[in-house]
Amino acid sequence: MAHRPIITLTSDFGINDHFVGAMKGVILDIVPEAAIVDISHAVQAFDVLDGAIAISQAYSYFPTGTVHVVVVDPGVGTTRRPIIASSDGYHFVAPDNGVLSMVYAQEERIHVRHVTSEHYFRQPVSNTFHGRDVFAPVAAYLAKQVDSHKFGDEVEDYLRFAAPRPKAAGENRIRAVVLKVDRFGNLITNVRPEDVPSLFAAKAAAFKIVVGGKEITAIHSNYAEGRPGEVFGILGSMGYLEIAANRGSAAQFTGAGKGGEVSILLGESAAAGKGA
Amino acid sequence: MAHRPIITLTSDFGINDHFVGAMKGVILDIVPEAAIVDISHAVQAFDVLDGAIAISQAYSYFPTGTVHVVVVDPGVGTTRRPIIASSDGYHFVAPDNGVLSMVYAQEERIHVRHVTSEHYFRQPVSNTFHGRDVFAPVAAYLAKQVDSHKFGDEVEDYLRFAAPRPKAAGENRIRAVVLKVDRFGNLITNVRPEDVPSLFAAKAAAFKIVVGGKEITAIHSNYAEGRPGEVFGILGSMGYLEIAANRGSAAQFTGAGKGGEVSILLGESAAAGKGA
Amino acid sequence: MAHRPIITLTSDFGINDHFVGAMKGVILDIVPEAAIVDISHAVQAFDVLDGAIAISQAYSYFPTGTVHVVVVDPGVGTTRRPIIASSDGYHFVAPDNGVLSMVYAQEERIHVRHVTSEHYFRQPVSNTFHGRDVFAPVAAYLAKQVDSHKFGDEVEDYLRFAAPRPKAAGENRIRAVVLKVDRFGNLITNVRPEDVPSLFAAKAAAFKIVVGGKEITAIHSNYAEGRPGEVFGILGSMGYLEIAANRGSAAQFTGAGKGGEVSILLGESAAAGKGA
Repeated sequence: MAHRPIITLTSDFGINDHFVGAMKGVILDIVPEAAIVDISHAVQAFDVLDGAIAISQAYSYFPTGTVHVVVVDPGVGTTRRPIIASSDGYHFVAPDNGVLSMVYAQEERIHVRHVTSEHYFRQPVSNTFHGRDVFAPVAAYLAKQVDSHKFGDEVEDYLRFAAPRPKAAGENRIRAVVLKVDRFGNLITNVRPEDVPSLFAAKAAAFKIVVGGKEITAIHSNYAEGRPGEVFGILGSMGYLEIAANRGSAAQFTGAGKGGEVSILLGESAAAGKGA
Repeated sequence: MAHRPIITLTSDFGINDHFVGAMKGVILDIVPEAAIVDISHAVQAFDVLDGAIAISQAYSYFPTGTVHVVVVDPGVGTTRRPIIASSDGYHFVAPDNGVLSMVYAQEERIHVRHVTSEHYFRQPVSNTFHGRDVFAPVAAYLAKQVDSHKFGDEVEDYLRFAAPRPKAAGENRIRAVVLKVDRFGNLITNVRPEDVPSLFAAKAAAFKIVVGGKEITAIHSNYAEGRPGEVFGILGSMGYLEIAANRGSAAQFTGAGKGGEVSILLGESAAAGKGA
Repeated sequence: MAHRPIITLTSDFGINDHFVGAMKGVILDIVPEAAIVDISHAVQAFDVLDGAIAISQAYSYFPTGTVHVVVVDPGVGTTRRPIIASSDGYHFVAPDNGVLSMVYAQEERIHVRHVTSEHYFRQPVSNTFHGRDVFAPVAAYLAKQVDSHKFGDEVEDYLRFAAPRPKAAGENRIRAVVLKVDRFGNLITNVRPEDVPSLFAAKAAAFKIVVGGKEITAIHSNYAEGRPGEVFGILGSMGYLEIAANRGSAAQFTGAGKGGEVSILLGESAAAGKGA
């Protein structure tokens, strides 16, 4: 069983409709021994960045050889290309719309192919559901060890966008953003420790983080350190600064949500200035 | 691994409770090598037609030999019969309440058996959860290659209802209905291309579709052709006319929902008349 | 395939984020042949009792040898212990915060170990996501037949709480509670048949159950016996008295929810007294 094929699915299809089930049927019809794992089907509808975040947070935990399918595809049925992106460890099957951008940023070597071999598609190909008719069967054949070069030629001009990064906004001031809100109401920002090292230093310098209506002046190392009702910062499991609360929702306490602005003030300006 | 048993589950149980997990435990206890695939557990509670639509849209993508379990079962614990419906390719395990009606309509040959061999049930059988105690174990033994005739005798008087079909409503006017609203807000109507061929002809004749508060005069071939805010028709992946919007929710734009009326006017009446 | 490893997951992580997918990746990286089954990820956030109920309702249906992972873990990153609880049939991997209390109550023999062998953890261990870094890999190695004694020493002082039990409140009066509300709006109480045998006797004595604004005077044996709009009692599949309605939501009809009070009056007081 050393080479059990594993395929993961990430999409904005939700799980209330039959969409995901139909994709799994197509996969199992081609490679019945596959393990199919859902990463998330709750990507915000049509939101390519949200899909990029979801896959980037999960793919690397899977065994080498896993095929990751990512379908956030507002351009389905148009000329946007279906692609296979192959790194040293994984294949990714997706529309060429940037949804793999954060994977490209994490993987040193990546080869991207434009999938043109239509005999690997389910026929007839619907104009509105390439998850079922294009991406699922291509992933299944990849999992079945069909060589990626058989699906189409390599391309260099694949679409990638830069994930939003924190920006300096004056001296000792950084402007960042809430990438997403998780199930517990934690606000996942786009701030990595290397962006503001002093924030996570053993002996943190003076700082103030302003999110929504709240000023945050503490970084804790686990959720349970927070006092009831306190909103604080924490280095979360996604590798980003999170705004969190102990047994409560920071989203609710701050009123901030996805896309919300996060201001970080360091040093004297933190002690003196107003944040927002 | 040529004959890996595959079992799918469709129900109105939701996924917040332990119900689906308990069913999977029962199945794996009987046939541990099975692949169990969720189609949907978000069928509207007690809504047999909604369940009929869900299974009819997904079952045919699975490999031959798959066992499909469908539990939408408001009559659980009464005398309504548990049945196995067997087509050339699949077994379906369900209560005999019409939830397989759309499967019956799609499959040419079908044999239906009343499951009476209670030694295949989990004992004691609860009066309120036959998904766990009746349907799951029966499906597991079927997947384990127990012959369907061992479960009970064939019956002819199984329950089936006619799915709602579009109706002529005066000359050049067709009255249809919204079967369901999908995750993106697309309105799935019950209109198949053969019901109104002119709508999908290469050179479409004049037409007007009225849904909720909106008049629709365009059929697009993919979602991205829609202008921002435009509501249009499209032949969807389910094989029905869908009312859709590009990166938006047609349900929201029209105010229509499941069960909503869809009026199609053709020819002159489309050019002249008011729709609703 | 007699010993296919099976791992179940129960958590308060929801399924919208990547958390569960990441855990599954970690597991499959260690034991790729595992079947991973979700029981529920909709445990109320931070609610250890709700998690205890979920796992207690599902684990026993799985085959002997199944490893059950339960992560409801508001103390993640603190000194609360990760544990393995082993019964004759199963291993449970969880934080030592009482989330296994109802398992302890159901299993005659249980051995609990404090997991201290950190070489089984994923490194580095995040302070906020032990589901991925501690519980998932420990479960995977257990499923791979690593002896439980290799993970750490047995402890006796593991945390367990008593599940809320019905209480006598005056003569012929019992005060109980709603443990949870299921997907259909059924109110699952903490009353077992042995708590109030007369309620479920073939010839039930006079009784009255008061929940929310409603007085309930009938016990039915299946949902379909209920008249439209009627709220009634039923012995549910969880082994508890449920307050239910036929094709309707008892939660809505009564206005009661999780934690709501349930008063049972027996005999004369049922005939005469006011309930609430």
